[in-house]
Amino acid sequence: METQTRVMEEAAKTSELVEIILETEARAGASGISVAGGGKEGLFVSHVLRESPAAKALSLKEGDQLLSARVYFENVRYEDALRILKCAEPYKVSFCLKRTVPRSDVPRSPTAGGLEVKGPQAKLAKLM
Amino acid sequence: METQTRVMEEAAKTSELVEIILETEARAGASGISVAGGGKEGLFVSHVLRESPAAKALSLKEGDQLLSARVYFENVRYEDALRILKCAEPYKVSFCLKRTVPRSDVPRSPTAGGLEVKGPQAKLAKLM
Repeated sequence: METQTRVMEEAAKTSELVEIILETEARAGASGISVAGGGKEGLFVSHVLRESPAAKALSLKEGDQLLSARVYFENVRYEDALRILKCAEPYKVSFCLKRTVPRSDVPRSPTAGGLEVKGPQAKLAKLM
Repeated sequence: METQTRVMEEAAKTSELVEIILETEARAGASGISVAGGGKEGLFVSHVLRESPAAKALSLKEGDQLLSARVYFENVRYEDALRILKCAEPYKVSFCLKRTVPRSDVPRSPTAGGLEVKGPQAKLAKLM
């Protein structure tokens, strides 16, 4: 009786499923995926084309729930940026931005005026 | 002569401009901004409507260069998600995603298969 319980416990342990939260590396070309769902149930990857950038560079898999996407505006076409910002308007967004300020205005604390200074300290680049 | 040099140095110090990289808090409704630029020169905030969510919740300012935007897919309309992903296809993107895996498959190292486990350890939520 005791042995049987132990065996069942072990079987449960090996089949135990866990949810992990992953951040993919930033790569160009999220093409090759189909998504499904949306709304309260969440947005899921329904299909990934083999050998596509989504499968190879981003390592996306069928069944992954997409919690958020960070789009980099390097060399972005104005029209594309406008469309992305327009579509994103009803949803929660955060921006990574570069701002030029007098050195005296650089916030000394990690959060200042609703803005979080990235990393342990603000990255500073001398302009003058 | 020496005094004059010192005065000039001090004036230079106070007017010194620096670039800071900021990450705004994630807030709903990035409405109220106009953007300009794009391409190699970068994407800039050209106008911010006073009292708009962009000004108040996101603290965006005219002249800010938008480096990237993270869009959260909580309660996202399927069509909007599709449009955002489509527009973002030519550009660098990263995804934050939730994946269900057997506990035995949880990567022990912070990077595994092109995926970075967020934070010092993967966040685990027991499913069964």
